[in-house]
Amino acid sequence: MQQPPAESGMTIEQVDTPALLVDLDAFERNLERMAQWVERAGVRLRAHAKTHKCAAIALRQMALGAVGVCCQKVSEAEALVDGGVPDVLVSNQVVGARKLERLAALAARARVGVCVDNASNVEELSRVMSDAHTQLGVLVEVDVGAGRCGVDPGEPALALARLVAASPGLRFDGLQAYHGSAQHIRSYDERRAAIEAAIARTRETVDLLAANGLGCHTVGGAGTGSFHFESASGVYNELQCGSYAFMDADYARNQAQRGEPSSEFEHSLFVLATVMSVAKPGFAVVDAGLKPIAVDAGLPTVDEPAGAEYARPSDEHGRIGRGTSNVALELGDRVRLIPGHCDPTVNLHDWYVAVRGGVVEEVWRVDARGAIF
Amino acid sequence: MQQPPAESGMTIEQVDTPALLVDLDAFERNLERMAQWVERAGVRLRAHAKTHKCAAIALRQMALGAVGVCCQKVSEAEALVDGGVPDVLVSNQVVGARKLERLAALAARARVGVCVDNASNVEELSRVMSDAHTQLGVLVEVDVGAGRCGVDPGEPALALARLVAASPGLRFDGLQAYHGSAQHIRSYDERRAAIEAAIARTRETVDLLAANGLGCHTVGGAGTGSFHFESASGVYNELQCGSYAFMDADYARNQAQRGEPSSEFEHSLFVLATVMSVAKPGFAVVDAGLKPIAVDAGLPTVDEPAGAEYARPSDEHGRIGRGTSNVALELGDRVRLIPGHCDPTVNLHDWYVAVRGGVVEEVWRVDARGAIF
Repeated sequence: MQQPPAESGMTIEQVDTPALLVDLDAFERNLERMAQWVERAGVRLRAHAKTHKCAAIALRQMALGAVGVCCQKVSEAEALVDGGVPDVLVSNQVVGARKLERLAALAARARVGVCVDNASNVEELSRVMSDAHTQLGVLVEVDVGAGRCGVDPGEPALALARLVAASPGLRFDGLQAYHGSAQHIRSYDERRAAIEAAIARTRETVDLLAANGLGCHTVGGAGTGSFHFESASGVYNELQCGSYAFMDADYARNQAQRGEPSSEFEHSLFVLATVMSVAKPGFAVVDAGLKPIAVDAGLPTVDEPAGAEYARPSDEHGRIGRGTSNVALELGDRVRLIPGHCDPTVNLHDWYVAVRGGVVEEVWRVDARGAIF
Repeated sequence: MQQPPAESGMTIEQVDTPALLVDLDAFERNLERMAQWVERAGVRLRAHAKTHKCAAIALRQMALGAVGVCCQKVSEAEALVDGGVPDVLVSNQVVGARKLERLAALAARARVGVCVDNASNVEELSRVMSDAHTQLGVLVEVDVGAGRCGVDPGEPALALARLVAASPGLRFDGLQAYHGSAQHIRSYDERRAAIEAAIARTRETVDLLAANGLGCHTVGGAGTGSFHFESASGVYNELQCGSYAFMDADYARNQAQRGEPSSEFEHSLFVLATVMSVAKPGFAVVDAGLKPIAVDAGLPTVDEPAGAEYARPSDEHGRIGRGTSNVALELGDRVRLIPGHCDPTVNLHDWYVAVRGGVVEEVWRVDARGAIF
């Protein structure tokens, strides 16, 4: 693990770069907006911690009413529980003896859940949990349009739910019905249509299970790009939004309807970079390339100086063109970048530098950085 | 830091995933091929450790004749020196008081060099090194066509070299003349033309410096895609290749001329993944997405099962289509992926699992993982 790039009380000028910066005012407004939303909508929030990988942030979300967090990996869940988070859903399939044993050990220390889409996996989970004398909450994952994991809605989900409910060591908690690929559909109307189809598939499955005596305590799903649709569905009762805390350049490209709540979230996550070369006319080179910024969802945009443009990332360099800005950058100048995709960008850093009014207020560890197991 | 996904003596089936796998036979052949090449060509190798970030690998390269390694960041150099590497060039500009102080501390512990392209940076380096009573080797970086850092060839390079040579605490070592963007030009002839232009600019600058009494102990540059051109130039004397040790899917897309030495390097780096969902017809889902695999230079290709295809990465998932393979993947099956770009992929992992004949022989730490400062 790297040494932190800053200490509390430093000015932002003293922060070493490239650093992962959180604008605390914007971040806290984002957390409060979501907390108000779920309260008004009468649903629960189980914030997705794959975005932030940070127990300090998870606990802030829970302090504002979130019932717990989600994550995608057993090792992420371990890092969060180690950091004091009492309730973690691994919103993903877990396969393999070593991982199941770790999951069982974790279930003895915290309220832990997992998703399933395969009968033999359910049987193995049941055996390992029974052997460990522990109990695991289980959501049956239904593919509601994402085309990734999950059984088909209806009968296949019912069959798997019955198996879970009958399996020692497992507690049938309900359905996982997340439509991941819909989150970044640019057009508001197309996004709504995709989620309405997901809601219909979920409703059909919930009703079928109920008719067969299987109640769903949890019907989970929804992301930052769609949660207002699921909230209003009357079917989903637990939202799994993550990016809302930070936002990113990719979410900013979604076309939001006027009044759509996701359009109220602010960019609160930045990569702070330093100009390290001004040898060539027409651009400056900053010290932040592919290693501190994920580019899978496009290049970062430049927050400061406004109007400047980031281009040509290599491992440890990026070019800043003047764009529509009037700023001629000099050696040592700072540039504030908005990552294209917040989740994999966070995963490149060991520390958050949380800043308010130009001063470092806190430094948080990215507890589950690299937690890929 | 994560726990290692394997221990020495395990079979490959026991390795937890996603894991960064090194095929030791292929890896050692790559290292030996390069060692033989530089010996025959009469040039030095200073292998680029930004690729592997691993002291154990750096020491293997040096055991085969490399004079030292390069890296891009002070914190990378620290991690390598901590791991026992005695000679490290930061083949990059270093800007900012905190970083310069760390560089000075490091120069007291190992042979350390840095690149410069700015007079005020030279003055600050000189002041910090003098204050620390240490000496730093300095290469003047010349832009030979990459359009990133580096002063122009000829007079601007001479002026900066004179300043370095006259600065206390600094030792003028020569020129850095790396043409990064040429490494991945697909056409052999276009790649050769780009490097021939770089060689001409470098030769002109070396000659001008010599005519002014400034000899270049080191003329460094070259990457895996071009080193045979620089080797034969009679101008470059220190190669900085890194990817040759591992290779990746992007380098495999370069069109190699028959007999071109880079075409002899083998893929030795893989991401081992596990099938975690087979709920949908037509594809399997593996547990390796954007967090263990960098996709900036394209998606991974599938090494095993041969002919299968990787698609649609999300944070922790990827879809494996059958492609031209005949294999119907089952839950728990293993898939061996060749990363699109080795350097940023390595940076996502804490451990290498070095395998020979299906057995884990060694587990190496990615010492400089996340060393972005």
